[in-house]
Amino acid sequence: MGIVLGTHQYGKAENRVVRIYRDTPRHEIRDLSVSTALRGDFGLAHTAGDQAAVLPTDSQKQTVYAYAREKGLRTVEDYALALARHFVDDVEPVAGARVEVEEFAWERVVVDGAEHDHTWVRKGQEVRTAAVTVEGTGADQQVWVTGGLKDLTILKSTGSEFTGFRTDPYTVLQPTTDRVMATSLVARWRFTEHAGVDWDTTYAGIRQLLVATFAQVHSLALQQTLFEMGRAVLEAHPFVAEVRLSAPNKHHFLYDLSPFGLENPGEVFHADDRPYGLIQAQVTRDDAPDAGPAWYGYTGLV
Amino acid sequence: MGIVLGTHQYGKAENRVVRIYRDTPRHEIRDLSVSTALRGDFGLAHTAGDQAAVLPTDSQKQTVYAYAREKGLRTVEDYALALARHFVDDVEPVAGARVEVEEFAWERVVVDGAEHDHTWVRKGQEVRTAAVTVEGTGADQQVWVTGGLKDLTILKSTGSEFTGFRTDPYTVLQPTTDRVMATSLVARWRFTEHAGVDWDTTYAGIRQLLVATFAQVHSLALQQTLFEMGRAVLEAHPFVAEVRLSAPNKHHFLYDLSPFGLENPGEVFHADDRPYGLIQAQVTRDDAPDAGPAWYGYTGLV
Amino acid sequence: MGIVLGTHQYGKAENRVVRIYRDTPRHEIRDLSVSTALRGDFGLAHTAGDQAAVLPTDSQKQTVYAYAREKGLRTVEDYALALARHFVDDVEPVAGARVEVEEFAWERVVVDGAEHDHTWVRKGQEVRTAAVTVEGTGADQQVWVTGGLKDLTILKSTGSEFTGFRTDPYTVLQPTTDRVMATSLVARWRFTEHAGVDWDTTYAGIRQLLVATFAQVHSLALQQTLFEMGRAVLEAHPFVAEVRLSAPNKHHFLYDLSPFGLENPGEVFHADDRPYGLIQAQVTRDDAPDAGPAWYGYTGLV
Amino acid sequence: MGIVLGTHQYGKAENRVVRIYRDTPRHEIRDLSVSTALRGDFGLAHTAGDQAAVLPTDSQKQTVYAYAREKGLRTVEDYALALARHFVDDVEPVAGARVEVEEFAWERVVVDGAEHDHTWVRKGQEVRTAAVTVEGTGADQQVWVTGGLKDLTILKSTGSEFTGFRTDPYTVLQPTTDRVMATSLVARWRFTEHAGVDWDTTYAGIRQLLVATFAQVHSLALQQTLFEMGRAVLEAHPFVAEVRLSAPNKHHFLYDLSPFGLENPGEVFHADDRPYGLIQAQVTRDDAPDAGPAWYGYTGLV
Repeated sequence: MGIVLGTHQYGKAENRVVRIYRDTPRHEIRDLSVSTALRGDFGLAHTAGDQAAVLPTDSQKQTVYAYAREKGLRTVEDYALALARHFVDDVEPVAGARVEVEEFAWERVVVDGAEHDHTWVRKGQEVRTAAVTVEGTGADQQVWVTGGLKDLTILKSTGSEFTGFRTDPYTVLQPTTDRVMATSLVARWRFTEHAGVDWDTTYAGIRQLLVATFAQVHSLALQQTLFEMGRAVLEAHPFVAEVRLSAPNKHHFLYDLSPFGLENPGEVFHADDRPYGLIQAQVTRDDAPDAGPAWYGYTGLV
Repeated sequence: MGIVLGTHQYGKAENRVVRIYRDTPRHEIRDLSVSTALRGDFGLAHTAGDQAAVLPTDSQKQTVYAYAREKGLRTVEDYALALARHFVDDVEPVAGARVEVEEFAWERVVVDGAEHDHTWVRKGQEVRTAAVTVEGTGADQQVWVTGGLKDLTILKSTGSEFTGFRTDPYTVLQPTTDRVMATSLVARWRFTEHAGVDWDTTYAGIRQLLVATFAQVHSLALQQTLFEMGRAVLEAHPFVAEVRLSAPNKHHFLYDLSPFGLENPGEVFHADDRPYGLIQAQVTRDDAPDAGPAWYGYTGLV
Repeated sequence: MGIVLGTHQYGKAENRVVRIYRDTPRHEIRDLSVSTALRGDFGLAHTAGDQAAVLPTDSQKQTVYAYAREKGLRTVEDYALALARHFVDDVEPVAGARVEVEEFAWERVVVDGAEHDHTWVRKGQEVRTAAVTVEGTGADQQVWVTGGLKDLTILKSTGSEFTGFRTDPYTVLQPTTDRVMATSLVARWRFTEHAGVDWDTTYAGIRQLLVATFAQVHSLALQQTLFEMGRAVLEAHPFVAEVRLSAPNKHHFLYDLSPFGLENPGEVFHADDRPYGLIQAQVTRDDAPDAGPAWYGYTGLV
Repeated sequence: MGIVLGTHQYGKAENRVVRIYRDTPRHEIRDLSVSTALRGDFGLAHTAGDQAAVLPTDSQKQTVYAYAREKGLRTVEDYALALARHFVDDVEPVAGARVEVEEFAWERVVVDGAEHDHTWVRKGQEVRTAAVTVEGTGADQQVWVTGGLKDLTILKSTGSEFTGFRTDPYTVLQPTTDRVMATSLVARWRFTEHAGVDWDTTYAGIRQLLVATFAQVHSLALQQTLFEMGRAVLEAHPFVAEVRLSAPNKHHFLYDLSPFGLENPGEVFHADDRPYGLIQAQVTRDDAPDAGPAWYGYTGLV
């Protein structure tokens, strides 16, 4: 019996890169948080304190910023691909690299009816996410790309019910045929293609499908809505293999106004913080290729 | 020499009220955090543990939710006015009441090109704020109303410089004639009228003036931009007496790419977290009436 | 009628200074967040974009770090005094300076029964606070010092009641003679002396009085407990003129287990997040000298 | 080709349970955040909106609070085991249950030199964590238990170096033989036993080993320290199969005071926020049994 090093990775997390394009008076902006992780045989650093194989996390940071200039970041996915490939291709002994990106959207200020050339307000809505994993070199190189979003808070004030559920001795909940349903959605999707994808158009399309489906499905349960959202994305996007969704049920409790002689026909609610329901599901093609390390997150170790 | 009770107030903070209007199939939503504070002679509660004069904070909470139904909350200012007046007029021994509101905006989901009737995503941008203070009853009743916003993150990628500043032995900063300027703005304004104000239109107008001024002023310093923002509001809104602004200078540092043989002509920045500059200013009419307790915040005691 | 600049200040917020004393193998550590604000006639920066009088916030930052070396920071109050005096004495046209400090406590790791020389874990409990304001120079210089703490979460599982309160038509709360009382305390106190005070001993003494009083007072209301806490500090510390306390009533609701045939005699509680009661009070000597700008906080403008 | 439901689970997250033991005048307190997740065949809820198999998350919440009374929670692990078994054993069609717990420690207030019977301050340091997974019933029932901690912020002011690392064209970092090393540790460990374990003693012992090892290892890299921490735990605790560690390298940058003519021999540092290094590693016995679903987190789906 011995004690050994198992899975390990290291990198630089949350590099806050802002890239301005100023080739014309109408500037463009991309605002990112970029995290890198390198995988490979870094065992001696752990077991003997020997850093000979270790590219410092500071060097990874420098690369993140330098690539924003050298390679550009017209789309976050292509930028992340370039970074991940660089680490695997150019830095021995890196066997695999993962680059995770969060993008914060900005919208142009409107002045006198026209969009301003170089001033924006942060959009503040959902955060767009992407994760690229690259393993191997040359002809054996494999690439996995996922896209996603988080913190998309969405609410419908009717068109949602919850009835016919299982009861047990601890059940006091009453069924309802009309409730407020709200969530702060996390969704991630796995691509089977990474060349020739129009990343920004695809993102916008998937976001719109998620939102429209949430609105249009008469919901018998949040579970059902999530499945329909995933299905809509898969039906419309052939190069998406699966969708993973995590949806806190942000409870809006109808406030009891009867002590004050008031009816409350679905009008006044208390938005509660905790606890909250949490519904999570994967919707997948039945012939989806193996996910490999695509979902093996930057914080996957703990 | 004695030890005495000084200023004091008590209330219920952060009631999360969501109000749905469903009179027609096209619902409306208002989403608030409401905090109440009562002032008056509650000394015996402190010095003798005698609660006879104390209306529980729980009763204040019930009133907050009940008034969302009874009085409605078509505008947060009128709702807050009704609440504050109620506490002063109807609850002895309340001598003064302050109601602070934060409003979270939602925007309708668009499905097939049309706004959806009952589904929204949280807008996620700035939070709208309001504070109403009422003192006294009957003909002696006085009312103060402030509006405001917070968390409006705004950035311009050019049109900002910082030169000609004072130096001392600790000065290493170099002047710059072209930088990124960004802030997360807090602004509050004090009304001299509270009857007949179109609150929502006024809010939208002030927000637009703040944003447009930030965009249009060629900034020699954040101080200058703030003053111009305040001035623009006062010039356009005669019933606003003063504007108070607090603006963290969210530093975007030009990343040094020279070690890698790369120029960086204002393109790649590191968005730093801390420390940050913090510029605060009041812009006021020189004949503004006394502010009284208008700015005496809910957390003003500490 | 004209539009003018009113109150204004500017500075560098949240400088994260860590100071190690390593004169002997047994190191010492002080871990601070330091915010500076300068006041005076900086009007031209606002109204004309003229920076000639403006010492950059970057220079203030450099000074904060340099003074941690030059002047040391054996106690945060003396360090803040030195900084504030420097800005007023040495930097024209600064008329007033305010330095606010938060200190994060560390405790030594114990290894083999002995405190380690150079390893600590962050204590994680309350944050110690201090604010120093200096105005004027030479014989006319005035100094105000406040101390304080925040985020001290304290709970008692009995010895607290709430009965005999005022009721109104919105009152549904039932009186209770035994409840959980918990708060996350913010307390600040104003010194009338700033020379020769043993700052660290005083802080420890006041903290202990606050905590012990919370424990020992049989509480008829949180209001009563706060007053007794303030009184205890004032009685024991003659150079403290007043104490300001802000205490969220962190509600612990007795969970209703009766649907499951279970009694719940004060044993199982739900710790709720929002809304919460908020009780705020000032306890003061009746001959306390005027507070001047002592409480005029760094974020006081908005 | 079809679209199908894949992995899914649902439950109630972050139930904030506070349990007081008051059998004697010396009360005890346990303060938890409890999250439940049920797994099994809930496919019809997703694909058809049919809730017949779905026990509401509200019922799970009621059970969480009821079990705190019925079963007690003298140790969080036994409480979590009872809850998870109940869901699998008693609620058809639950095939697997996961219960995750975070525990917040309190320490007794000391009054007049003695620990108080019923007043505590929240300790504020690391959060203790546990996760229990149960699958199957009767003789086939399998149980996995992990323990852990998070948010343990630890720092050493010397005894840490970083030299001899790999360089590439993006490397500007200079080697150092004496630096501040600090992290906010997350550690989790997997038990191979769950009967007869003295959970609280084991937790205290592992925490002490982690802390002491961090202090005592002369660190050639954070990687090395982490490995030694894991090894120390495994050597001392035969029923722990593996340890997983995630350690942000909380950078403390030596402040450059040379522009001001000051030396800075390891005394004044800037504690930076982002980006940060992130080192993650698993230390394991080479004969550790398969982890099964032990690490399949509550938020594992996304």
